[in-house]
Amino acid sequence: MSGNSEPYGKPEMSLDPDDWQSFRASAHAALDDAIEFLRTVRQRPVWRPVPEPVRSALEAPVPAAGEGFDAVYREFKELILPYSTGNTHPRFFGWVHGTGQPGGIVAEMLAAAMNANCGGRDHAAIHLERVVLGWCKEFFGLPPRTSGLLVSGTSMANLIALTVARNARDVRQIRDNGVGGRPRWVAYASAEVHESVVKAMEILGLGGDQLRKIPTDEHFRIDLRALRDRISDDRGCGLEPFCVIGTAGTVNTGAIDDLNELASLCAAEKIWFHVDGAFGALCVLSEQLRSLVRGIDRADSIAFDFHKWMHVPYDAGCVLVRDGELHRATFSMRPSYLGTLPRGLAGGDYWPCDFGPELSRGFRALKIWFALKEHGTRRFGQLIAQNCSQARYLAERIGAEPELELLAPVSLNIVCFRYGVCGVDECRLDRLNEDLVEDLQESGVAAPSTTRLGGRLAIRVNITNHRCRRADLELLVSAVLTGGRARKAQLS
Amino acid sequence: MSGNSEPYGKPEMSLDPDDWQSFRASAHAALDDAIEFLRTVRQRPVWRPVPEPVRSALEAPVPAAGEGFDAVYREFKELILPYSTGNTHPRFFGWVHGTGQPGGIVAEMLAAAMNANCGGRDHAAIHLERVVLGWCKEFFGLPPRTSGLLVSGTSMANLIALTVARNARDVRQIRDNGVGGRPRWVAYASAEVHESVVKAMEILGLGGDQLRKIPTDEHFRIDLRALRDRISDDRGCGLEPFCVIGTAGTVNTGAIDDLNELASLCAAEKIWFHVDGAFGALCVLSEQLRSLVRGIDRADSIAFDFHKWMHVPYDAGCVLVRDGELHRATFSMRPSYLGTLPRGLAGGDYWPCDFGPELSRGFRALKIWFALKEHGTRRFGQLIAQNCSQARYLAERIGAEPELELLAPVSLNIVCFRYGVCGVDECRLDRLNEDLVEDLQESGVAAPSTTRLGGRLAIRVNITNHRCRRADLELLVSAVLTGGRARKAQLS
Repeated sequence: MSGNSEPYGKPEMSLDPDDWQSFRASAHAALDDAIEFLRTVRQRPVWRPVPEPVRSALEAPVPAAGEGFDAVYREFKELILPYSTGNTHPRFFGWVHGTGQPGGIVAEMLAAAMNANCGGRDHAAIHLERVVLGWCKEFFGLPPRTSGLLVSGTSMANLIALTVARNARDVRQIRDNGVGGRPRWVAYASAEVHESVVKAMEILGLGGDQLRKIPTDEHFRIDLRALRDRISDDRGCGLEPFCVIGTAGTVNTGAIDDLNELASLCAAEKIWFHVDGAFGALCVLSEQLRSLVRGIDRADSIAFDFHKWMHVPYDAGCVLVRDGELHRATFSMRPSYLGTLPRGLAGGDYWPCDFGPELSRGFRALKIWFALKEHGTRRFGQLIAQNCSQARYLAERIGAEPELELLAPVSLNIVCFRYGVCGVDECRLDRLNEDLVEDLQESGVAAPSTTRLGGRLAIRVNITNHRCRRADLELLVSAVLTGGRARKAQLS
Repeated sequence: MSGNSEPYGKPEMSLDPDDWQSFRASAHAALDDAIEFLRTVRQRPVWRPVPEPVRSALEAPVPAAGEGFDAVYREFKELILPYSTGNTHPRFFGWVHGTGQPGGIVAEMLAAAMNANCGGRDHAAIHLERVVLGWCKEFFGLPPRTSGLLVSGTSMANLIALTVARNARDVRQIRDNGVGGRPRWVAYASAEVHESVVKAMEILGLGGDQLRKIPTDEHFRIDLRALRDRISDDRGCGLEPFCVIGTAGTVNTGAIDDLNELASLCAAEKIWFHVDGAFGALCVLSEQLRSLVRGIDRADSIAFDFHKWMHVPYDAGCVLVRDGELHRATFSMRPSYLGTLPRGLAGGDYWPCDFGPELSRGFRALKIWFALKEHGTRRFGQLIAQNCSQARYLAERIGAEPELELLAPVSLNIVCFRYGVCGVDECRLDRLNEDLVEDLQESGVAAPSTTRLGGRLAIRVNITNHRCRRADLELLVSAVLTGGRARKAQLS
């Protein structure tokens, strides 16, 4: 490169380290810390708040001059690593978070080294995505013409599935001209439907109110008779029912709709049948639990996550669409700069950008492929069943404690209960239980979350956690009793 | 745990390794391979096709029994790692792919260990995302009330920005009732607009045809007079112009619209001004190039990527919205299971799920924070300018070769040209140049892509590559000349 004169004579620079050996040593030290972080997780508090001085330190202005890798890593270790969400811990019971797994950190490191953009083209990452999607079709018993896409999670998967469902009536016309001027489209789900479905209706321009929330039975499953009546009423008003969303695993209680009945209803009514199976769909991997999601193989589309009950590191979800051609017709768009060529890098007949809104996409398939091959589907099925068994165990323990009250039947892996105090009004009881959950989280002993069931505040224990042991649930029950008694004492 | 009787007496299992030492050794070996992959990249072909036996081997059925980490890793090393896209290589010039960087592999490994779900709640990852977004506001000179979200890339960022723009007229009404029955909304962009904007219009239910593609000038920038006329015509027809999309760096030629003029026009017309700055927006980091994007600080929203010209590993993009409250009002939805509590893990006043469609979101902020701190903004600005200088150098080299023909002015980092043959019809010339690009890719020497400009097939060289040297461009020119002559000889 020497001998070039200005303006091209400046020495060219890159982002690579000047000293690869030194970078290598730093990277290995970081890897050791990452592995230790997971190996010793049980010895630490589940969660702790980010202290004010740490927040302030993070809020430094953007540096004009680089600080070098080692200085940044030291800051990470001091200011960031200690203040994680806590979902790697055996006593994290909040929301529906997966635990992650050690193999996943290696898979993510390798994906970053390869740095694939999985929008399309012909390279190993694309083939691997197709392989993983093929495995998913196999799990669920979907036919070969089914298409799919790896996405960030079920929120995105629901959005994509509903886009296809919306466009099914006349895909070219709706893509080009939009939904204005059409009869109003309506969709249906149980009152326990996840908010991401409402959000999808809003984004798609259909309107959140056009999702009918159908009442549930005492097990929090959609009431089929009420659903049928509402569809009939809506048709009578000239509206166009286009989609029913069945839930496999509601976020509040883990309830699973009767998917088989929903499939029959949708077939009879000629309505798209989508299953939001964020965590519950993977019950297909367990021999014991599979019957809970009977009928899922009849769905027109399925949305689910790998980062929940398969413990793939965040984020990783999937959408599957039975009519693969319609799926492609909904999203495919190939300007000249995205043309497929017969040979070379622009070859290949499967470009993921044809199946969703994203053109730039990381290499999610790798961590999923690693997890499935390292552990095998049977082990995941056993661990899912183990969590459900742990939930039943916790429900029994709660049933045996007079101070605790179970607030919903345990259908899967979620236990909703509260610390009860006779003669205290509901409002103060809600406050007591909310305080109690905050106390538990701040103590670092356990991290359940809260929700409301029938208007009452519930302590919500969600077990999608491969590190959880029954002993951890014992510890939780003791901590709730101790904390509840302390809060109760303050009431008087 | 001992002493429990059935059904709870089964020994509990997890996904953690039985032997942490052995896992640790395997993980370190994988890290060494990952670093070597990057350090020695120049010694390998840019790209090679995935051989048929490799594809077949990948298509094995999903294993019921786990194969263990080491077996899976061996398969990765043999079947996947050698067949990457090639964008880590100094002579990858296809599409607009970033190169990645070694620090990014450590950041991704650490993010996977922490396994944060960045939908919300109170933990370090959330604070870090806000810090990174604050830095971006600083780059672009946007006011403090600006909100933002890290996303997979500009496709998602465009979709989010256009959702906010659509809802700006009456956010609650549009969220609840959709866009049916309204006057037809129209948006505007140049004919060189990226397809993701059309896709966003389709997903939002507005219709792709309602994006007006305005002609460009000879530098492929939007024709402002034509834009003004079209808006006026549309208003005359009772339509509702709601958004103008300015492009900072078109994908075909790297052209940048006159953002300052667009901002003035939008202010006068009371239309939302969005900038699709996928790669071009980051010109703000370069003192030399900043003036090219003058007016970007007047945008209502900006979409751009970190995985292109900042070389953060895939995927990482960003959307910024000047009216942060409107952004939140467009996406926020808090059912009881997502309630914010005063203390504990459910605390915090910034939940990213309030600003986009996703509730499950990985920890993208970490790799961006690492990159910006390790290298500093100045270095990124210098590297962006270096790539633009390399593009001008290549254009000069092409100008000096009688067999080569430049097909568009070089505005930034993209060079479109072809191998020309006198007296050959355009159709055969297109075919020759397409063959030539496929030959180059298959040879492993260099990987440009193709596009069409004014109907003619162009060899498209995009330089968003921190490893590229002028010597690599020399090598490219030689290879094109040699290959072109060989293809030409076959014509006669």
